[in-house]
Formats: sequence, structure tokens, C-alpha cells
Amino acid sequence: MSKSYARHLNANAIFHRIRLEPNISQRDIVARTGIDKSVVSSIINSFDELGLVIRAPVSGPNRPGRPVEGLTISPDSGLTVGVQIEAKRIGYVVAALDGIPLLSKVQPFDGQFFSVADLVRKGVAEVMEECSRKGRILGIGVSLPGLVTDAGVLLHAPVLGWRDVPARDAFSDVFEVPVFVGNDGTGAAMAEHMFGECVDVDDFIYLFSGSGVGGALFLKGEIYQGASGLAGELGHIKVVPQGRFCTCGSSGCLSPYLAESGLAEEIGRLSGDHPVSFEQILQRARAGDYVVRSVLDNAGGMLGIAVSSVINTFNPPMVCLGGDMANAEEFMRPAMERELQRLAHPSMSAQTRIIFSRLSTLNPYLGGVALALDGVTGLDSPHVLPKSRA
Amino acid sequence: MSKSYARHLNANAIFHRIRLEPNISQRDIVARTGIDKSVVSSIINSFDELGLVIRAPVSGPNRPGRPVEGLTISPDSGLTVGVQIEAKRIGYVVAALDGIPLLSKVQPFDGQFFSVADLVRKGVAEVMEECSRKGRILGIGVSLPGLVTDAGVLLHAPVLGWRDVPARDAFSDVFEVPVFVGNDGTGAAMAEHMFGECVDVDDFIYLFSGSGVGGALFLKGEIYQGASGLAGELGHIKVVPQGRFCTCGSSGCLSPYLAESGLAEEIGRLSGDHPVSFEQILQRARAGDYVVRSVLDNAGGMLGIAVSSVINTFNPPMVCLGGDMANAEEFMRPAMERELQRLAHPSMSAQTRIIFSRLSTLNPYLGGVALALDGVTGLDSPHVLPKSRA
Repeated sequence: MSKSYARHLNANAIFHRIRLEPNISQRDIVARTGIDKSVVSSIINSFDELGLVIRAPVSGPNRPGRPVEGLTISPDSGLTVGVQIEAKRIGYVVAALDGIPLLSKVQPFDGQFFSVADLVRKGVAEVMEECSRKGRILGIGVSLPGLVTDAGVLLHAPVLGWRDVPARDAFSDVFEVPVFVGNDGTGAAMAEHMFGECVDVDDFIYLFSGSGVGGALFLKGEIYQGASGLAGELGHIKVVPQGRFCTCGSSGCLSPYLAESGLAEEIGRLSGDHPVSFEQILQRARAGDYVVRSVLDNAGGMLGIAVSSVINTFNPPMVCLGGDMANAEEFMRPAMERELQRLAHPSMSAQTRIIFSRLSTLNPYLGGVALALDGVTGLDSPHVLPKSRA
Repeated sequence: MSKSYARHLNANAIFHRIRLEPNISQRDIVARTGIDKSVVSSIINSFDELGLVIRAPVSGPNRPGRPVEGLTISPDSGLTVGVQIEAKRIGYVVAALDGIPLLSKVQPFDGQFFSVADLVRKGVAEVMEECSRKGRILGIGVSLPGLVTDAGVLLHAPVLGWRDVPARDAFSDVFEVPVFVGNDGTGAAMAEHMFGECVDVDDFIYLFSGSGVGGALFLKGEIYQGASGLAGELGHIKVVPQGRFCTCGSSGCLSPYLAESGLAEEIGRLSGDHPVSFEQILQRARAGDYVVRSVLDNAGGMLGIAVSSVINTFNPPMVCLGGDMANAEEFMRPAMERELQRLAHPSMSAQTRIIFSRLSTLNPYLGGVALALDGVTGLDSPHVLPKSRA
């Protein structure tokens, strides 16, 4: 591991420890994270210089003797904006460093790359204008539906038809503040680890569905990247040999059975009434439409096949299912469980907790916020923040 | 990561650096491994006390000035014995710490757990008797065809019908020397990383076929374990929904399409002539038997489906295919490549090198040696070696 990457991981671990345990002392940070004392001290100094944390003496009934210096995330440190690019819309969330969303908004999107950076520039300006809490933007995170390399190039975004576009450069050009781009599955998994049910879970496999199906491998406390940052494309696990064509160019992947477009197409063929959104699909399922329910049941079964392979491969303590499917748990979980019962190795399956993400149902666009926070609090160069307080 | 596990990893990294680069200096070890100077020094002192390494001054035309102390694995340090338990036989290899096999032997096996430890005790005594090079046994590694927990319990070995057997305790009871047990896929992957084509490859996915199909995830320089050491069961990736029954109790896994028994059964059904071993299958394929060739071709296709999912999941720089299939490359590779072309994501597939293991074809039982070496040179407690030289 490179020293700069180790520092990034350590800085993030320290930041989130402070976020989760306000008034924590440096000594307790060392004890909880296992990071070397001198490293903790140096990183906290950096946070302090950037105005991200507040030092204040802490005393109380459980802390006899001389007050200890406690650390807390500064409420005035600034804001992050999460941006999620999807097939037909762009989602925005403004959040402070604690990750609690202050405002979210959705904008329609025609899927053109040449205009996206300008559109996002205006979208970010609008949400900042509408947000009641003011402050400097510390970073913007852009969550993209496709393969993003370590260098910020979007190799292929099937739902948009984009190939080899310089995403980080395009967005960085229109903002004065640091921009961090990443795969949507990666961002959403990081959000689960920061704010969701995977806080303090060091190993989990994340899958989500939306306009596409993606995922991430969170192993030993960090996102596993693979050869060039593309690992975790769990929407392209094979579930049916010679099966449906997939946007990736292949066939038989999980994605065409679980993504919104695949579900809508099947429902349209079977009922003659093609839904235009996942919300419509859900409404019809809740109203008792048996065609829609059977299509969601089938999708749940396909999900169960893929999750069985994931369990047999990773022996994971947790699998987290987010995005659209998190809202359809009642219609998909029974078939998924049935396939797990049939297909996953019982010794391993017994050790895996499978959850549908509550975070996804409550705050669907936190992936971008997580990417921004990861960059800002990971003290990433070249995106060094100005060395002055807001 | 616990401190003792970090020490284990560091000790192994240092040992293999010395093994691969005889006469290396401590300074160069620090530079190559990135491990802290004081840790390197302390671990080398432990190796020295155990008689595993020799310190000798190195000088020469490329090393002007005062001779530097170089480190080399001691040729007299002792031996390891690798034991591989399979469905119908047990394989043995004796090797020195350099991993070069001195003697190997195969013994028939009736698959009974109650007698296996005694059988292995006699088998080890025989190979040590027959081996021309004498020396103390530093450790014995037993490679098992099933799910082995961190605690050395074999949860399930389908090809043997064993469940919940205390493997480490059973073998430790019959030997005076340290015994290390592990999953056969894990052992074989470690052997590839120590002695094969994956030396210095920090990320690779390993699959092997034999009486069963197994694998291992080698990620960021170490075996990824999962929740309880069971990760890497790649023989149970799903390739055909509602497909063949598998020994794991499920159906549609890769294993029944690729393991010896599945191949033999299909060949028997199609030709009326049931092969009794993988060697027979290979002989018939080489002789031009078109039924056998088509069955191997089909198995290659199934392998390609599974490897496609592996590529899309891990974005691995390397996939290594070992065991029986390494000997059948000519009959399986074309169909595997065809499926990869159809099914793996091109952006990721282009970054993955797929090799059939040469080590498997030359030295099939090194998995046990790797497990033994990993324990011995990882300085694992409670298996502390006697603090005296041989």
C-alpha cells in the first residue's frame, strides 16, 4: 500500500471515529482505530488547520480529574454536495460533514455528456441557493452509473451510452472547489459504511439496482478496487446462460432482470401496460397487480441466484441491498430467500446477514456525498483544501 | 488487523524475499517489502534463532567497499511435508524450505475419517524414510478438500462425506511437530504465490479442479478469508439455474460440470464407457475420443461462464487455473475463451491474464507444503518451533 493511500485511509478512519463519537479524546481514537499515536496527532492537526474539527475540554461525572481535550466535527466547517447521474435524471443532496441531508432535489436529464457539466454546475448553484444553511462547499462528489478508473475516466456507462469520457476533468473544470467522481455502487457502499447499517462493519458486499445494477466489494475496511478500480460490477454476475441481452454487450447478467428498464419491459410485454418509472412499478405492485408482482418475484429469484454466488465466493458477514430494490423488499425478499435456501452453501449462508438498505429508502442520493467526504476528509491531494477557516 | 496476524504476514513476506533473492541484505529487504526496519531486524533474529537463515558477508564486483551481511535460507534448516487428502487417495511431498520437492508419493485412501490421522502418520514416516535428504521436520501441512474454519475444524468435505470433524486436532495428536491444516484451494493458491507463476502477483483469483472444484481469493498480498475462513468456494459459483445437483447440496454450481466425477459420469453416459480417473479421461481425449473431447469442451464453456463472473466481480489482474484442468488446457481453453469473449466485460477482461498453472502439472501436491511453510515461516504460535538449531 502506498503511503499516501494509507494516510487517506487513516484520515478517513479518524474523521468518522470523531463523527460517530463526539468529544472523543486523541487517546481513545488511538485505542479504537489502532492507528499510531503520532499519525493520529498529525492528521488531527491537518483537520484543525482546515477547520474541520473543534478541540474542547471535556469533563463530567464519568471523567474525574483534569479535563481531557475532546474532538468534535465542526458544525460550521462547511458543506458537501452529492450529485448522482442517472439515465433520465440527476439527483442532488446538500449535507454537512455529519452526512445528514439538508436538502435534496431531482432534475430531469437528457443523457448528453457534452452538456452535463454545465447542467450540474447550475444544479449545484440552485441547491446551494435554496439551502437554508449557508457555508463554503468543501467538496462535490459525482456518482456515475458506470466503470470509473482510478484516474477519473468513465470507461463505459451503458445506461447513458457514454464511453471513455474524462469525467473528473469535465466536472473539475466548472467548479472552483474539489470534485471527486466515482462509480455509483462504490459511492453508495461508502455511504452505507459512513451513515447506514454497515457502520463499523469491515466486510460487506453491496448491490444496488436502479437504472442499472451495480455494487461494490467492501473488504477489510475499504473498497476493494481490483486491477484498475473496476471491481464490484455485481450487476454482471452471470445468472442465466444464454439469457437476456445486457447493456454491457453480453448476455445472462443479473442486470437485465433487475434494473428498472428490464422490469418495465417485461411488465409491458406481459400486461400491455409499460410502466414509465420504478415508482409506477411499485404502485402497481402495492395495488395488487399480479403481473407486476410476478415480475418482481422473478427478479427476486434472480437476485437470490446472484447473492448465492456472492455468499459462496466471499463468505461475507453482511450483504447489503440498496437502490430501487430496497423499496421493493416485500415483493422480492420471499423469492430471494427461496433461492438462497436452494443455492447458497448452508455453512456460509448461516453466517451472512442480508439487509435491504434503509438508507436507500430514506436518502437515495448519499453516494455522491460519501465520495465527496471520502476525498475531503481523506486529505486527498491534489485536491488540497485552502488552508484557512471558513 | 491484529498485531500477531500482521507479524505473521510480515514474517512470511521477509522469508520469501530471502528465498527469492539469496544474499539479500536487511536494507534491501526493508526497501523491497516496505516493512519497518526494526520489525525486519526482529523477525530475522527469530529466523536466525530457529536456524532458518544464514548470515554471511557478501562482496563482489557489484558491491564495492565493505562487505554487507547477506541473508540466505539455510539448506540444513529442515524439511516440510505436504499432505493432500483427496476422495480416493492421499498425496505426499517432502520439500526443503526452498519449496523444491525432494520426493512425492501417492497412497490409496478409503475415505474413513477415524483412520486418516494414523494413515497419514504412517505415510509421513514412509516418505521421510525414503527421502535421501535427512533433517528435522519443521512442519506438516495438510490440505483438505472442504470448508476449513480458522479454528481448524473441517465443516464439510463433500467428496468425503465428512462433516464437522476436528481436523487440526486429529492430525496434531499423532505428530510431535507442528501441523497446519487448510482448505486445498487455499493451500494451492499459496503455493502458486510462493513457487509458481503468481510470485510477486499481489492480486489473483485461483480456481482448481480435481475430485472437487475449489479456489481462493488472493487479494492485496494475502488470502481473503471472509467471515470465518470459508471464502473462495468458487466451485459453487452458479452457472446453470436448475442445473446439475452438486455435492454441496445445491444445484447449478460449477463443480458438477468440472470435477472428475461429473466429467466421468457424463462421458460414461454418452459413450457407455465410464472412465475411472482423470488420467484416463485425458488419455482418451488425446487419442481423439470425440465424446470425451466434447465433454471437456462443455466443461471449458462452464469454466468460462464462472471466470466471466469472477472477472466482472474482481477486475483481477490474473486468474490462475490449477489442478486437473491445468493438464487439460488444450481441450478446455478454446471453449473457455469463447465464453469469456461473449460474457466477460471487455473493459475488465482486457486487463486480466488467465493462466493454466504449470506448477499443477509439475508438482501437484505443493498445497500442503505451502500451508506448512506459511505456518513455520509465519512464526505462528502456538506452533512455536524449538529454539535450537538442527
